[in-house]
Amino acid sequence: MEVEIIAVGDEVLLGHIVNSNSSFIARQLSDLGFSVRLHTVVGDNVEAMEEAFRLALKRSKVVVVTGGLGPTDDDLTKRAIVKVFKRNLILNDNILETIRQRFTSRGMEMPALTQNQALLPQGATFFPNKFGSAVGICIAEQGRVFIALPGVPVEMQQIMTDEVIPYLASLNIGQAISAITLRTTGIGESHLSEMITPNLRLEPGVKLAYLPHYGSVDLRVVATGATKTETNEKAERLARHIEKMVGNYVFGRGEETLPAVVGRLLKDNDKTLAVAESCTAGQLGMEITDVPGASAYFVGGLEAYSNDVKIAQLSVPEDIVAQNGAVSEECALAMATGCRKLFKSDYALSITGIAGPDGGTDEKPVGITFIGLASAHTSYAKMYRLGIDRRMNRTRAVKAALELLRREILDIK
Amino acid sequence: MEVEIIAVGDEVLLGHIVNSNSSFIARQLSDLGFSVRLHTVVGDNVEAMEEAFRLALKRSKVVVVTGGLGPTDDDLTKRAIVKVFKRNLILNDNILETIRQRFTSRGMEMPALTQNQALLPQGATFFPNKFGSAVGICIAEQGRVFIALPGVPVEMQQIMTDEVIPYLASLNIGQAISAITLRTTGIGESHLSEMITPNLRLEPGVKLAYLPHYGSVDLRVVATGATKTETNEKAERLARHIEKMVGNYVFGRGEETLPAVVGRLLKDNDKTLAVAESCTAGQLGMEITDVPGASAYFVGGLEAYSNDVKIAQLSVPEDIVAQNGAVSEECALAMATGCRKLFKSDYALSITGIAGPDGGTDEKPVGITFIGLASAHTSYAKMYRLGIDRRMNRTRAVKAALELLRREILDIK
Repeated sequence: MEVEIIAVGDEVLLGHIVNSNSSFIARQLSDLGFSVRLHTVVGDNVEAMEEAFRLALKRSKVVVVTGGLGPTDDDLTKRAIVKVFKRNLILNDNILETIRQRFTSRGMEMPALTQNQALLPQGATFFPNKFGSAVGICIAEQGRVFIALPGVPVEMQQIMTDEVIPYLASLNIGQAISAITLRTTGIGESHLSEMITPNLRLEPGVKLAYLPHYGSVDLRVVATGATKTETNEKAERLARHIEKMVGNYVFGRGEETLPAVVGRLLKDNDKTLAVAESCTAGQLGMEITDVPGASAYFVGGLEAYSNDVKIAQLSVPEDIVAQNGAVSEECALAMATGCRKLFKSDYALSITGIAGPDGGTDEKPVGITFIGLASAHTSYAKMYRLGIDRRMNRTRAVKAALELLRREILDIK
Repeated sequence: MEVEIIAVGDEVLLGHIVNSNSSFIARQLSDLGFSVRLHTVVGDNVEAMEEAFRLALKRSKVVVVTGGLGPTDDDLTKRAIVKVFKRNLILNDNILETIRQRFTSRGMEMPALTQNQALLPQGATFFPNKFGSAVGICIAEQGRVFIALPGVPVEMQQIMTDEVIPYLASLNIGQAISAITLRTTGIGESHLSEMITPNLRLEPGVKLAYLPHYGSVDLRVVATGATKTETNEKAERLARHIEKMVGNYVFGRGEETLPAVVGRLLKDNDKTLAVAESCTAGQLGMEITDVPGASAYFVGGLEAYSNDVKIAQLSVPEDIVAQNGAVSEECALAMATGCRKLFKSDYALSITGIAGPDGGTDEKPVGITFIGLASAHTSYAKMYRLGIDRRMNRTRAVKAALELLRREILDIK
């Protein structure tokens, strides 16, 4: 069954708020088996809303609107609804009483404006709002379902989860959907496609998408069909087939991040990690500790931004900095071994590179990065040619460093 | 002049990627004086794209599409373009040569699939892409401008900024617009509003918006009018009025970030900075060095995640960790003074807190954070009660630390 999502609000339309509401609703509905057809964003403008609501109702059986249900003058969603559905607003005593009680229990008087929140389009039902005064509105008729929810994310999410999802799940939509995301790193989108496409035969109802990020590409398998068992099996079949073709470039599935995967490997092997970061200056440590519980394996790190710090704290020989430069294989290696000694960790990773925009030379252009790894058994450094943008280079360097460690622990050559 | 923005891609449609691209484009275009009419999101589906492109071209003079320009089979934007505009794809030798050279310079062979990236709809011009192989496409005819950009954010943003904005600015759109963003930190949206609203009288054609982020709020002044001189003056008048009311909470204007402002202050005063980070574990160093040229004042830092590192590297007395705990005013102070000695810097900042989700107690709940500052003249630490989310807490702690230093350097009490 097809569904459209409409977000209402000037702040979203003008780009001052990122439209995470539509993403949340889309994810929930597609997990439920609905086929999301379109998202639209319109401003706080009754005519634009009317047009968007009418077009959506013409195209799709279910329309979910978010935003514009507040009590102030720029909240116009209800006005557009009564125009599209040609009906009046009626004061709902139950809603009014609930809102009034909420104010009373907080020792406050209900502002006069808030009474607007108890107005409902004739014939509509409502979904209660645990966190605010704007209830969800539902008009179901002539085979169409129109739902309007507030735009405050925590309120919208509560009503979606507690009310809208159970309600929509009760409509028999006759289609199941399953999705699996395979996460890869160390290989570009085109090369992945060259490995996959020649041997790919997609079953009916199965799709594959490539999702590139800085330094990683997600492969997303989506299967649709009559039953969840069927779609789970179809998605799993393709995911396994791709894993065989792509092999070690896949580091995880679903929401698993590279720092979380490496963290789990360290924890499972009872090993610790320290880092020495020049051009990333903390980003590697930050991403490693983005994973709750990282203190089980992450000891600490050095933001070795200046050469003095590399020499004084990491014991990088002055000769190396003078002769090979701070951005060199030799320096990355010395940083990693020095870091491991300083922090007494099992593994150490080092990053030194030219992140840009300045500092590049003909011999060592922006993007050149060396990553070092040291353990009790081995130590080495590798050169990477990353991109030309500072943030991109730093993010790619962090992923490359984590991937180097993942491959070392798993003994992938 | 009205503009519509269309984002293409199943991942956005299904909610797995938040549509920050449309927000970026909307912000840029509305700053330029365009009237943003609608955003649409469609999946990787040629028919859905065709319909969306046709509807948008009927309603609005300018249509900007993002996504679906990659080399793989699920990148269908060009196929929809040639259907809507009824023309062929033609191989562009200049584009092909540029892409080939980029691969060669990185010591790599161009994958065969990448050749698709050099195909352009007949009669289209292109905008070069500094970071990737997907060029922007522009078809301008019959009073309509249709622009298609890649979906990778850094690539889209570069082409928008360097190519599309100058191009669209050259079209005469008959209305001037000026915007000034005042950036504040250390104060919430409601308190800012209480300081501003009682004394605010907006001239006609001038608007003020509050844009909250983690740990900071932007105040956005937008003036519209007949000429740029008029709108510049109106916007500047309101901005100055607000600066008077809000005073030292404003740290900068426009795109100026807090790390850039603090960096400039350090540079102007010829001072250096080092950091010691426990719960942020590198994020402060990373954000400081997000500013190109930070090596002029940033020496380095310690990711002092474990207590051993705090004691061994930063010389925090064991007694403090044992008696006051690693998350304490005393520990933050000792970390800052130890950090300053270790790195021989003029200033040192330290952060230690309970970022969550675990580790909170009744006495020290999640969000409690101590930030220390040490210089040749003074040293102190302050307690902050941040939020309940790990990422939010770390980002807020970084901003609070930078703001503490800004106020110290500027002698703001």
